[in-house]
Parts: sequence; C-alpha cells; structure tokens
Amino acid sequence: MTDSLIELRERLRCFAEERDWQQFHAPKNLAMALGVEVAELAEHFQWLSEQDSRRLPAAELAAVREELADVLLYLVRLADELGVDLAQAARDKIGRNAVRYPVETSRGSSRKAPER
Amino acid sequence: MTDSLIELRERLRCFAEERDWQQFHAPKNLAMALGVEVAELAEHFQWLSEQDSRRLPAAELAAVREELADVLLYLVRLADELGVDLAQAARDKIGRNAVRYPVETSRGSSRKAPER
Amino acid sequence: MTDSLIELRERLRCFAEERDWQQFHAPKNLAMALGVEVAELAEHFQWLSEQDSRRLPAAELAAVREELADVLLYLVRLADELGVDLAQAARDKIGRNAVRYPVETSRGSSRKAPER
Amino acid sequence: MTDSLIELRERLRCFAEERDWQQFHAPKNLAMALGVEVAELAEHFQWLSEQDSRRLPAAELAAVREELADVLLYLVRLADELGVDLAQAARDKIGRNAVRYPVETSRGSSRKAPER
Repeated sequence: MTDSLIELRERLRCFAEERDWQQFHAPKNLAMALGVEVAELAEHFQWLSEQDSRRLPAAELAAVREELADVLLYLVRLADELGVDLAQAARDKIGRNAVRYPVETSRGSSRKAPER
Repeated sequence: MTDSLIELRERLRCFAEERDWQQFHAPKNLAMALGVEVAELAEHFQWLSEQDSRRLPAAELAAVREELADVLLYLVRLADELGVDLAQAARDKIGRNAVRYPVETSRGSSRKAPER
Repeated sequence: MTDSLIELRERLRCFAEERDWQQFHAPKNLAMALGVEVAELAEHFQWLSEQDSRRLPAAELAAVREELADVLLYLVRLADELGVDLAQAARDKIGRNAVRYPVETSRGSSRKAPER
Repeated sequence: MTDSLIELRERLRCFAEERDWQQFHAPKNLAMALGVEVAELAEHFQWLSEQDSRRLPAAELAAVREELADVLLYLVRLADELGVDLAQAARDKIGRNAVRYPVETSRGSSRKAPER
C-alpha cells in the first residue's frame, strides 16, 4: 500500500504534466492558489457561530469536504515543486510544537508561544 | 506502516486533547488559523519573481518547509473535527478534476473550467 | 481639504517612487501582500469568541489598528497601480448591493444573494 | 464635501442597521469576510505573470474593480465596528514606515525591515 501523500503527489504530478501545466506551477503561483482555496473554505464559516460550525448540514459539509480536498491538492503540488517531503516536515513540526507548548503550561490556553 | 495522514491525524488529536485545546478547535476557528498559516507561507513569495520562487536559497526553503507543515497540520486537524477523510476527499476531487479538465482541451491553458 | 483616499494615494505613490519600489508593485504582488496583511489582522481574532472580538483590550486594539492601516495602504496602492478610483468603485458597489439585498427580504439573514 | 471614508462608513452603517446585520458583524466575522474578498481579488492574478497583471483586459479590470470595492467596504465596516479612525490610522502608519524604511537604505530593495 502506498502512503496517501505519496500517491497524491504522483497523481498530481502526472495530472500537471499531461496538461502541460507545470509552466504555471511556480511556487509563487501555487501559494496564491492555495490561499484562494482556503478562502473558499473559510467562506462557509464566516457568518456561523463556532457552535454551528461544528454541526454543518449535510449539503454544506459535502461542499466543505470538496474545499478541504482542493487545499490538500494544492499543498501537495506546492510541496512537490519545492522538493519538500510534506509528511516528514509535518512530523518535524509536531516535535517542535511539543517543545514549544509543554502540556503543563499550555493546558486550556490559546496563547501563542514565542517563536523560540 | 500507518498512512501518514492517519498518523498525523491521530498525533494531532492527542496533542489537542492533552492540552485541552479542543474547546478552541471549532471548524470556524481552525479555518481562520489555516488561512493565517497560508499567508505566512505566501509572504515568502510575494516580492519574488516566479522564476526565483522556483529556486529558493536553502535558509528560505527551510522556513518555507516549516510553513508548509503548519498548513498541513491545521488542515488535518480541521478535517478531523469535521469527520472528513481527507485522503479520500482528495482522491474523489482528482477524479472530478479529470472530467472537468480533459487533457485535450486543457493543455497549456490556465483557464478555469466552469463548475460543471 | 483633500479627500483622505486621494491624500493617501498621493503619499503612497511618492513613497514608492522615492524608494524605487514601483518595480515590485505589480498588481499581482500587491494582491499577495494585501492578503498577507489581512491574515495578520485575522490572527488577532482567530481564537476569540465573536463576543470577545467586540471588546478588545486596549493593547490588542492598538495592534489591530495598525493592521487595519496596513490593509488600507496596500489596497490604495493596488488600486492606484490599476488606475481604479477606489471611492467611486465603492459607491458603485453599495448601489449594486442595495439592489441585490433589498431591506425587506434581507433583514436578519446572512444568506448570500446570487450574483445577479 | 464629506471625506469619502467618512461617507462610506456612514452609508455602510445604515446599510447594516436597516437589514439588522449588525448581529453578524462581529469583528471576527468581518475579518474573515475581508479575507474572502481579498482572495476573490487575488484569484484574478494567480496565473498571470507580473507583467500581465499590469495590463488587464477591460472586462477583467471591471471585475477586479468590483473586488477592490468589496475589500474596501468590509475594511471600512470592520474599522467602524472597532471604533478605529481608518484614515488617521493609515497616516500614522505611513509616518512609522518612513522611519522604518529610510529612502537611502531601502532604495530598490524589497527586504522587510525588522519590526523596530
């Protein structure tokens, strides 16, 4: 079984190659496109209470699911163009966050920790 | 071997539970936080030419790698709170995109296809 | 008395010219920079309840005020580079919104109206 | 003659009051909506070269003009809800930027200055 992030990376790379889209996929452009997709996702939540955002009606959730997919697709494409191993980068970051936000001092607080 | 998206989902869920952060993790809030991380990523590219965005200096790339990780972490957390299987949603979307952007008519064009 | 949007436009144009920054101020780049500033603004609100976002502590409000300024500065610069009269564009849009959202049918509803 | 930012503030306040929309206009929600509008603006530029973003076709420019208006409307509404004088905040920020980016050392450089 292939890891899903690897599988997506390969499929998206082929998708872009077949359509000769790599010319458009400069990291700068992909970063912009990623921001646009995240905003399309956020639009579903902007007038909802936090509470209501936890219990979306089925049709809304289906639309949100598709936006989540779009965000992941652009993120995987961008990481691939930059030569970044996304899964490993995420693991490394969880490790750094565990140091930055110790359980004892972070419990129940949304305060941002200083960068280091 | 666990799929990396599943592994990240489980680790992030524990991370949030241990810190009692689930109270903050309403989908609305996570969608905002995701947007903030994407902007921190985009900031690295805003004054670069497309060409230069393809060949970042090593220090810049290391910083960008960390921002990519942040985006993935919030995306995985958000999908988990919404009960969405992110890998499957992405596979489904690639399938829809293949229909929406046929190879023959999409080659070399960045034009957006109508929604359906 | 000069209109404040005109005054800001002129001051920012000089600011950019004096520093030879117009080479960086392609609309594409300014649109990205605008997005980054909006995210820096949003970051102040992401973990707050709606209620708490209405009553920021003074220090927080001072920081938010500065982010609001940054957003306006990039917006004015971008409109100037595109040759758009921002005040007139905004007046026109209010007119269109008044048609799109009639008082009777829009009262108390956050539903988005179809584009036309 | 009324300053255009004041005029827009007053018109938008009435617009919201007439529709009983102030309940939705928590600063948190307006900041999200502002981000969505900026992304709709950015979408017009994401696959364009910097050069092409400087010379949009007329129809594209008309659409971009409307998005610029949307951004200003939400920005004015947000500043009003927070009690911030937007024009004065922008003037203050230009003053700070003049100190932060002296003409001599900033000429032709897009490097971000340290916060202070």
